[in-house]
Amino acid sequence: MAFNDLFLRAARREATESTPVWMMRQAGRYMPEYRAIREKHGFLEMCRTPELAVEVTLQPVDLIGVDAAILFSDILVSFPGMGLDLEFAKGEGPVIHNPIRSVADVEKLRVPDPYEATGYVMDAIKILRGELEHKVPLIGFAGAPFTLASYAIEGQGTRDYEHCKALMWGEPVAWDMLMNKFADTVIAYLSAQIDAGAQCVQVFDSWVGYVAPRDYERSVLPYTKRVIDEVTAHGNANVEGGVPVIHFANGATSMIDLVQQAGGDIVGVDWRLDMAKAVELIDPRFGIQGNIDPVALFAPDDALEEMVVGILEAFGTRPGHIFNLGHGIHKTSDPEKARTLIRLVHEHSARIRSGA
Amino acid sequence: MAFNDLFLRAARREATESTPVWMMRQAGRYMPEYRAIREKHGFLEMCRTPELAVEVTLQPVDLIGVDAAILFSDILVSFPGMGLDLEFAKGEGPVIHNPIRSVADVEKLRVPDPYEATGYVMDAIKILRGELEHKVPLIGFAGAPFTLASYAIEGQGTRDYEHCKALMWGEPVAWDMLMNKFADTVIAYLSAQIDAGAQCVQVFDSWVGYVAPRDYERSVLPYTKRVIDEVTAHGNANVEGGVPVIHFANGATSMIDLVQQAGGDIVGVDWRLDMAKAVELIDPRFGIQGNIDPVALFAPDDALEEMVVGILEAFGTRPGHIFNLGHGIHKTSDPEKARTLIRLVHEHSARIRSGA
Repeated sequence: MAFNDLFLRAARREATESTPVWMMRQAGRYMPEYRAIREKHGFLEMCRTPELAVEVTLQPVDLIGVDAAILFSDILVSFPGMGLDLEFAKGEGPVIHNPIRSVADVEKLRVPDPYEATGYVMDAIKILRGELEHKVPLIGFAGAPFTLASYAIEGQGTRDYEHCKALMWGEPVAWDMLMNKFADTVIAYLSAQIDAGAQCVQVFDSWVGYVAPRDYERSVLPYTKRVIDEVTAHGNANVEGGVPVIHFANGATSMIDLVQQAGGDIVGVDWRLDMAKAVELIDPRFGIQGNIDPVALFAPDDALEEMVVGILEAFGTRPGHIFNLGHGIHKTSDPEKARTLIRLVHEHSARIRSGA
Repeated sequence: MAFNDLFLRAARREATESTPVWMMRQAGRYMPEYRAIREKHGFLEMCRTPELAVEVTLQPVDLIGVDAAILFSDILVSFPGMGLDLEFAKGEGPVIHNPIRSVADVEKLRVPDPYEATGYVMDAIKILRGELEHKVPLIGFAGAPFTLASYAIEGQGTRDYEHCKALMWGEPVAWDMLMNKFADTVIAYLSAQIDAGAQCVQVFDSWVGYVAPRDYERSVLPYTKRVIDEVTAHGNANVEGGVPVIHFANGATSMIDLVQQAGGDIVGVDWRLDMAKAVELIDPRFGIQGNIDPVALFAPDDALEEMVVGILEAFGTRPGHIFNLGHGIHKTSDPEKARTLIRLVHEHSARIRSGA
């Protein structure tokens, strides 16, 4: 089997004969093969056991046919090494038992050595590169400083961000220290992933869509930009051709002008922005990742096909499109429909890009 | 005490000497006076008992100092009259025990007479107009067809919309029938509110931010537009000077070009869009309502003041600004901070609008 480099070429904004496609959360509960493993192991246990992380990372490559693997892990795995007491409570998502609520808490936070804190991630990446040698590229990832800070401060997933924003507005010096500690942690962590073999990295700013543009520009963007700049520099210095960086700021399409100022190679776009408008608003020096509604996998095939074609045609034939869902795949999605999506993207993009 | 018509003049896009302000969910749990009543009565019981609805509607007018009252009620009160078995389960939000899942379910749905189904709302409005005679104007409201349909189909609040969108894409004829039934229900309901004395009405499309622009344009916008057009016509035909309509499509700022095609007088904007950009993107024939981050009420006064001034200056001195939060006030907000917000909006807008 020949290595499928379609994803890597698109991520580097080189011409491709068709459009690569992967799905956020593609290694997940919608697959019976994943659930079979998850039933026997805790979520963090799976993240921390390279053999298990490797196995579920490979599942969508082998069974669904995506053009890239993304490491199975979680954006919060660095937390224990920083001194944050993380637990995945059953059915409740992540809980941090000692959330950051004061300047003293910020001062106590550590920037961990990525190998000491999360060596199992680098071990999994090394195994995966061997397993994927004749298959597809491997994407590494981390959370962006704001999303990590919001979890650390709120102590759990939220849609409110009262503590987080109160610190941002009320204690700007502590906020700067906090965001720099998260930025330093992410830079070291993604650099280690690159050294271990990640061929592309994605920075997930999952919750930044709850921040107003003025606050994004002042209190979030500078730290994300530093992460992307330094990780890009690390890739350029250590990997021939560099390591592309994808920046996905979820829910932030109405400030996409600011989001792209963070840099990187590919701007991830959720499904709230029409692809035609994304092409208009995003500087052509960037590629674009996205952006079909994840719920499209619950549509009849003909409606799904129409949505796929609409997005592909809106992007057009220039290089740099990575097809993806606008957010993670839902856990009740049908794997067969996911396979249909992959097929539709490949067939129609080949047709469109050949000018047929 | 003289009647404060600041809000009504701004809603009609007439010149005002300062900017009116009210807050979504201003009659709510952040006020101890509200909690005292809520402890003794169920939520739907409060909606259905005019004396209780009147009392909590008046609280923020008398105790916080907002420039408009909004009827205390819920967007789902019409559901039982439509044949939908609605319950507010303790701490869980609304539940519909017989959600719409088939074409047959859609066919069974009734368009109720608003007086038979929700006469208590019109009774409350009539009492309120008397109580507010020397105070402020009264806003009525309803949910937009999509938001109502999504609750009716999903059977509860959700962030997934799998059943809802599956019906939208898979059964377009049933979807059209469903959306028309909700549109007809809302038109009759808001027309009755106007006849009872509502001086302005707001259409809440609370969940439309989860819909992609192409789906909004095809499957949502035509029905919202029909509601707004017909309610506007009813106001023009029955009330001297007409009844302004505010359209608030929450989370939909990246398709604000489509949202404003629904018409009305005032476009509500959440806090994800910078006000300077809102002014640029929204046709000047509309006024704008918004759009401070609701969490700004957790900021120190000086930070809150800076945000208020930023929004007021970005809007400028033309007519048609109604200051509001970008979404409902959080239940843990401090009423004193809400009073500070009102004061800051009044003081700074008077300064800015006087050219001082």
